[in-house]
Amino acid sequence: MNSKPIDELKKRLRNVSHLVSILNLLEWDRDVMMPKKGSDARAASIAHLAGMIHEKFVSIDSDGLLTDLKRKLDLKKLKDSEATIVSETWRTFDRQRKLPEKFVEESAEAVSKAHTVWAEAREKNDFKLFLPWLEKIIRLKRKEADYVGYGSSPYDALIDVFEPGMTAESTARVLNDLKKFLMPFIARIAASTKRMSAKGPTRGIKGHFPIEQQAAFNEMVARKIGFDLEAGRIDATTHPFALGIHPTDVRITTRYNESDPLYSFASVIHEVGHGLYEQGLPAEHFGTPLAEFVSLGIHESQSRMWQNFIAQSRPFWRYFYPKLQKEFPKPFRKIPAEDFYRAMNKVEPSFIRTESDEVTYNLHIILRFEIEKGLIEGTIKAKDLPKVWKSKMKEYFGIKVPTDSLGVLQDVHWSSGLIGYFPTYSLGNLYAAQFFMRMKKDMPNMNRQIAKGEFGPIKSWLRKNIHMHGKTHTAAQLVERVTGEPLTSKYFINYLEAKYGNLYLK
Amino acid sequence: MNSKPIDELKKRLRNVSHLVSILNLLEWDRDVMMPKKGSDARAASIAHLAGMIHEKFVSIDSDGLLTDLKRKLDLKKLKDSEATIVSETWRTFDRQRKLPEKFVEESAEAVSKAHTVWAEAREKNDFKLFLPWLEKIIRLKRKEADYVGYGSSPYDALIDVFEPGMTAESTARVLNDLKKFLMPFIARIAASTKRMSAKGPTRGIKGHFPIEQQAAFNEMVARKIGFDLEAGRIDATTHPFALGIHPTDVRITTRYNESDPLYSFASVIHEVGHGLYEQGLPAEHFGTPLAEFVSLGIHESQSRMWQNFIAQSRPFWRYFYPKLQKEFPKPFRKIPAEDFYRAMNKVEPSFIRTESDEVTYNLHIILRFEIEKGLIEGTIKAKDLPKVWKSKMKEYFGIKVPTDSLGVLQDVHWSSGLIGYFPTYSLGNLYAAQFFMRMKKDMPNMNRQIAKGEFGPIKSWLRKNIHMHGKTHTAAQLVERVTGEPLTSKYFINYLEAKYGNLYLK
Repeated sequence: MNSKPIDELKKRLRNVSHLVSILNLLEWDRDVMMPKKGSDARAASIAHLAGMIHEKFVSIDSDGLLTDLKRKLDLKKLKDSEATIVSETWRTFDRQRKLPEKFVEESAEAVSKAHTVWAEAREKNDFKLFLPWLEKIIRLKRKEADYVGYGSSPYDALIDVFEPGMTAESTARVLNDLKKFLMPFIARIAASTKRMSAKGPTRGIKGHFPIEQQAAFNEMVARKIGFDLEAGRIDATTHPFALGIHPTDVRITTRYNESDPLYSFASVIHEVGHGLYEQGLPAEHFGTPLAEFVSLGIHESQSRMWQNFIAQSRPFWRYFYPKLQKEFPKPFRKIPAEDFYRAMNKVEPSFIRTESDEVTYNLHIILRFEIEKGLIEGTIKAKDLPKVWKSKMKEYFGIKVPTDSLGVLQDVHWSSGLIGYFPTYSLGNLYAAQFFMRMKKDMPNMNRQIAKGEFGPIKSWLRKNIHMHGKTHTAAQLVERVTGEPLTSKYFINYLEAKYGNLYLK
Repeated sequence: MNSKPIDELKKRLRNVSHLVSILNLLEWDRDVMMPKKGSDARAASIAHLAGMIHEKFVSIDSDGLLTDLKRKLDLKKLKDSEATIVSETWRTFDRQRKLPEKFVEESAEAVSKAHTVWAEAREKNDFKLFLPWLEKIIRLKRKEADYVGYGSSPYDALIDVFEPGMTAESTARVLNDLKKFLMPFIARIAASTKRMSAKGPTRGIKGHFPIEQQAAFNEMVARKIGFDLEAGRIDATTHPFALGIHPTDVRITTRYNESDPLYSFASVIHEVGHGLYEQGLPAEHFGTPLAEFVSLGIHESQSRMWQNFIAQSRPFWRYFYPKLQKEFPKPFRKIPAEDFYRAMNKVEPSFIRTESDEVTYNLHIILRFEIEKGLIEGTIKAKDLPKVWKSKMKEYFGIKVPTDSLGVLQDVHWSSGLIGYFPTYSLGNLYAAQFFMRMKKDMPNMNRQIAKGEFGPIKSWLRKNIHMHGKTHTAAQLVERVTGEPLTSKYFINYLEAKYGNLYLK
């Protein structure tokens, strides 16, 4: 009767997961549907439910059930799938029980206030206003690392939440390789861009694109590449996101710009990548780690693969460009496909991370990683941030940041207590490249299939190799298992070199 | 320190109410937004949350807090508002604790199955299929009455859930008065209608009315009469409803028929009436009975007052008809306002309750009330229902019911275990008429204000006299307090006689 305690654990986890699903829906509704005046009541409901979830989760071990199972796990007395459930549940549980209730409350309160102050500081371009709150958050995050424990850097304890298994050191290693390549590569592209004529094909697209038509086009593409709209929705919000309530109910959002159809399109493709992952998690294991995503980096690899590797490629538009031209004859009838492709893949150093292209993007991330690591390890002081930011932007991109609002204050993350989160964006690109190269090897016809609008094989490959495994493998195991080697920046570098070398440096 | 236990009770009730709000949102989302394939997971989440709500509610007295307060209440040691909170909480609590857990589960399961079988039976026009399930539900409902206890009729224990304070006897009294008036009145109208030319002004409206334009018109009206769209939404569903998540977040729905704009309009006005009540409940008391609606009948009085008494009146359309003509010049430019008014107020005996007019509607309800009362009191047998139904339809309306699907199987209520619910629809009409007459007395200019599009005074009157009190007064107390006399069918009869006598019998 070995199976009884594990079944009881699954039941308890499922009960917690129902509440987490509900919490996700409350947040989706808040951002997409809720009437304005409902916000205070909703905040109270969310806080109440979040508290209940915490309570319920912690109490799964109130009778020692999880501790007993952990003991069995250590004695290697569990089946593989049971081992995953117990080890992953233990990881989360262990972290939570190490953090005193009072500390968690203090942190939540500080983050809530810091976020408000940050928004005001960005608005007023006043870093000094935000500084004491940033300092407070850094203090709390270091304390958190102390509670949780770590190896060589307190940053290890923070990144572990988002990218389990990665450390300051292992992250620095792959990102440094990337940096060494990117800095000269971007400089060469920038120089080449300058030489290009102002009339060149990389100019922007001009026209008026009604939202409804954009939505129809995006939805057609989403459906075509495999997003199940009977198990999901696409709506509009200020900040696009993807959110899994259950593998049968996955909601993504985008935002529209009536003079740029690629603005909403890029978000939709990105979020559909996340959404396909959420829809591909095994519903039969709902509520257990077997049906949870591996890490933020792996999640991001799914969005980046679709957004950048596939939907910014020539084969993809060979299929979809005629459809885009049909939907918006003005201006696309007059723009050759190759010009469109080039416009879409324009590289240009800029201040704002979220508006940057797939080449420069990663240098924005590396800059943030270096700074937040320095802040947590104590080698950078918060008060020096504007100076540090500007000097790094000059060094990495060759551009002068005019204001802190367009610099160090641009991102929401630190004010939300998210330290250790940024690197997952670039790790996502590295994972994506490594998976993508493997997929191409497994499917030599892939580009031809894409050009014919056949996306089924890609979805199947991703489902079989990545989505369906949930947390069965760690990120590191998954990469090795799928690609035969550990995470490396090599494939991403090769990809950038081939694609953008061809576009800019030939 | 008398206030401490009551504050603790309020806190516990508020915590339960947060979960009830969340449950409401889950149901709204299921009916309005959820992708199709999400339904199983949603059903599981809803069941889980409903179970938690029950558990939390019952446990408010686990340490005797409520029992102690009840004792204080009986000794008249509580302030008025505290007394309301304790007595109303006790009423719900007392009923729940009298029902054994096992019985509740058995009932829930039976209802769930009965509902499925009923849908099939209606589809197939096969009453015999439904019969065993209907019999089971009646048995369970009688048992429920036994557990709860009652005075002279087991029906008392059932109607008390929906219309606290009303009994089989008191309901029969007011509805019999109404019936005595309605039967000859409807017969006279039917005879008069027959005499009218087929070309008369009561013919239907023909044309094509795009949904978006209907929605825009409905929303304009909703806003104008006082529904706060920053604290609410209007969406589309198969079955229209109004649902309060919180006074600051009230959601109503309607359904569209592209060849009849009054179809969606009638639902919107009806649900806006409910919605205004929900928005008018005192948010500062959220979570306690002070911010809950009095009864289903009182709730229905708010929807009926707007839908029938106001939005089917000449003054209302004096203001809105030109706007309707502007939105849909075809066909309304050519239809005189008076013809439109008459078409809208057409009276005609028919089979289906939900499609009937405001005169015959109540006879449909009386028929159902008499039958369900008979079923529970044992004077009517379930197996005889088709026969009883047909004979009553013949007697009351003078029409022959062709099939059980268009007869005894048409409504969802009994299959959902809702016995004692039907009368609240007609009680709503009676309350509405009685309130409406009082309002008119208090505001002699009301019709002129309506004709000018000034609805603020009506909303204020309703808020002050009804909405803001929550459950402070019982339905009976509220009616006496507002109108100076107990519930009577007199005002509704006067209203029908004046309006429809003028239209049909002059």
